[in-house]
Amino acid sequence: MSRADFHSNLDKEFGALTELWSPRVVAAANGQYVKVAKVKGEFVWHAHAEEDEFFLVRKGTLIIRYRDRPDVTLREGDFHVVPRGVEHMTAAPEECWVVLVEPAATKHTGDTESDMTKSIEAQTAHLRE
Amino acid sequence: MSRADFHSNLDKEFGALTELWSPRVVAAANGQYVKVAKVKGEFVWHAHAEEDEFFLVRKGTLIIRYRDRPDVTLREGDFHVVPRGVEHMTAAPEECWVVLVEPAATKHTGDTESDMTKSIEAQTAHLRE
Repeated sequence: MSRADFHSNLDKEFGALTELWSPRVVAAANGQYVKVAKVKGEFVWHAHAEEDEFFLVRKGTLIIRYRDRPDVTLREGDFHVVPRGVEHMTAAPEECWVVLVEPAATKHTGDTESDMTKSIEAQTAHLRE
Repeated sequence: MSRADFHSNLDKEFGALTELWSPRVVAAANGQYVKVAKVKGEFVWHAHAEEDEFFLVRKGTLIIRYRDRPDVTLREGDFHVVPRGVEHMTAAPEECWVVLVEPAATKHTGDTESDMTKSIEAQTAHLRE
């Protein structure tokens, strides 16, 4: 990525997002990406075999559904870590703004390939502009 | 750490912080810690040879001073990555609330040992309560 100096504002980055379920990488540190995403509706069930996922809600409500444990509901300012290897699905009744931290290699649909899958190249395209 | 299920609220975690310059680990993912800290005044000059540091300001203004490049001023919602190996110092004219993401092994005063240094054990003590 060409933008070595990551210095920006979260809401400015959310403002640049025009598409739902299309994570935007806004910073990189220690092999991790910090991303922002706008979501609404239901995502696909998936798991990441080797990667934990940190979620922080900036606006709205995010529901994280699990197969094997109680759902987690996150409202503004709430955060949660989805452990590696655990199947999960995210859902938002209304548009929700989410900050994610996860390894640079993480596919947002995990081991599931879906119409909703956005490549890492797509998630970082704006950094090469 | 005993709290496997990291599910909390940022402002609740800030509310639990009673001491300045005393980072509180609030989540762990992929060998990284997410921390909250309240800061005011000036910290010590230091560098982390191998670790980048991600800063996000929740409230107030944080100034990151560098020896070899322009200072960076972060206000609410602003974020910045301090690259590994680069000497820096943080300062806050008024009390400032900061979210950090950095490797679990990172000492917050880097290679500098200071009266302000808090051990990782101290930063995670509340998780063992």
